[in-house]
Amino acid sequence: MEKRRLRDLWREARELSFGTSGEVERLESPPTPLRFLRDYVAANKPCVISRAATLHWPAIARSLWSDDAYLCRVLNGRSVSVHLTPHGRADSLVPLPSAPGGGRGLCFATACSRNMEFSEALHLIAATGSPSSPVVAYAQQQHDCFRAEYSALAADVEPHIPWATEALACLPEAVNLWIGNGRSETSFHKDHYENLYVVVTGKKHFLLLPPTEAHRLYVRSYPAAQYVARTSSSSEEMGELKLEMLEPETLVPWCSVDPYPRSPEAMAEHRSSFPLYFEGPRPFECTVEAGEMLYLPSMWFHHVRQTPDCNGKTIAINYCK
Amino acid sequence: MEKRRLRDLWREARELSFGTSGEVERLESPPTPLRFLRDYVAANKPCVISRAATLHWPAIARSLWSDDAYLCRVLNGRSVSVHLTPHGRADSLVPLPSAPGGGRGLCFATACSRNMEFSEALHLIAATGSPSSPVVAYAQQQHDCFRAEYSALAADVEPHIPWATEALACLPEAVNLWIGNGRSETSFHKDHYENLYVVVTGKKHFLLLPPTEAHRLYVRSYPAAQYVARTSSSSEEMGELKLEMLEPETLVPWCSVDPYPRSPEAMAEHRSSFPLYFEGPRPFECTVEAGEMLYLPSMWFHHVRQTPDCNGKTIAINYCK
Repeated sequence: MEKRRLRDLWREARELSFGTSGEVERLESPPTPLRFLRDYVAANKPCVISRAATLHWPAIARSLWSDDAYLCRVLNGRSVSVHLTPHGRADSLVPLPSAPGGGRGLCFATACSRNMEFSEALHLIAATGSPSSPVVAYAQQQHDCFRAEYSALAADVEPHIPWATEALACLPEAVNLWIGNGRSETSFHKDHYENLYVVVTGKKHFLLLPPTEAHRLYVRSYPAAQYVARTSSSSEEMGELKLEMLEPETLVPWCSVDPYPRSPEAMAEHRSSFPLYFEGPRPFECTVEAGEMLYLPSMWFHHVRQTPDCNGKTIAINYCK
Repeated sequence: MEKRRLRDLWREARELSFGTSGEVERLESPPTPLRFLRDYVAANKPCVISRAATLHWPAIARSLWSDDAYLCRVLNGRSVSVHLTPHGRADSLVPLPSAPGGGRGLCFATACSRNMEFSEALHLIAATGSPSSPVVAYAQQQHDCFRAEYSALAADVEPHIPWATEALACLPEAVNLWIGNGRSETSFHKDHYENLYVVVTGKKHFLLLPPTEAHRLYVRSYPAAQYVARTSSSSEEMGELKLEMLEPETLVPWCSVDPYPRSPEAMAEHRSSFPLYFEGPRPFECTVEAGEMLYLPSMWFHHVRQTPDCNGKTIAINYCK
């Protein structure tokens, strides 16, 4: 009885704030600052803005970033950081490294981070998109990487989104670039900033859950681990990645739900462990195509997968405030 | 130790949101819709807007409402509702009516509401401003009274505040008129709507506390009572007001703090009972003069006193969303 009432309350909270369509609103043209602030930011409500918002960017209008040769020329000699995992899932829950005692359970695994020359990184990203590759590379570095590592590309996009800057009365605090392949996947998490996320080439597929549905993701504490590269002493070749627990033990609160368990058995186990996610209303789902922009409000949980362009890459840039 | 930390947290919360000046911001001209939404509504931050916002209203430009003859002519024959109390404090805490057993403590007292012809109401309001009057009259009726009882005055003001309507994307849900004298006082309370409060003649003195300081007002449950008029059977003259407890007993949660206790003894008792109010930072204080407009954000606690114009009246109009 109490349980049913609680579910009714959750349903009403969602319907009152976001309606019953389950769809993310799409805008055909960029909103005015007032409309953006009033109808989306103040309402903490996501929306997707059409290509009309970015058609004047050289990176979009001339598809500059789909062209590896262009990127390598402009970024020639630049060192960029690349995140390496065995499967494309950095910052995600994976089985604990097998211990002599035969440990069970999950840990929160972060990627192995490496700096390399841009053209090497780009090659690695495309090459590791194949399912047979034992490693997946993802060029991503938060903390304003676009204005640091990738500053040579500055003229290809706008330094900020003018209507958002006026609405929020501040310039972006960080601008980040993300270059990945079809295997990279970001597990459910939330950020505390307002986010404008532009896909430049390829596509991104988002699952979104409002902050009011945090309970559906079963945030629990997991011990932290990190992938480290086993380099053979005789060469600089990258070897296999090995998962190591952080010392001293560190606990990270993380969402327990994987929306796409990889086997029928895993799905059955997930369904019974996390019924509030699998039995409740579906998350908001949207695919952001090249040139489109997602407004991802602060504190919304998001899960992201990507489809590469014909060159094997997905590139996105996001502006955070 | 814990107590000091808690106080530090409260102080930081106030300083982060509202600075250290303790002053309500004043705008020399009406804000744009974007600025109003961004800097005040979204920030849940009050402001006072200068007369420039209302100088085009006939009620302000021509001081129409300071003129009793004008008001009586326009509202001739209209019936309006008037709230009567022995002291000017409706919806406030007063001692329990003395009971045979000798009860102690406070109750939440609402006014005696009467309908009367407008000119009679206006006369009563001015007459009962004298400290010797055993009754204080206040013409106030929420629920959109301006557009109902006082619709004949519609042309003297704006039907809505255009920049606020655009900022909030909706017309006012209610427009209310308040006609009182210098004895009327409104105890600390909060409303759940956005409020634009324009003083038309006289002055209003506000004490404001943000929702984050609710704990400083000691909201407790009090039994509800109402003033009723004792009319002598031989005449229609208004007799003394008598306070009667509501039957069946009804409890109303209300702020315990009276910021202006009426005697040194009452002040001493208040100080020791409600230290978080009297020892904490001062509430935001502002006086709104004729023609000025207070933006009072939803959920802010406010206490209001008034100073009448030379005809003994304070008139205000407020727009709620």
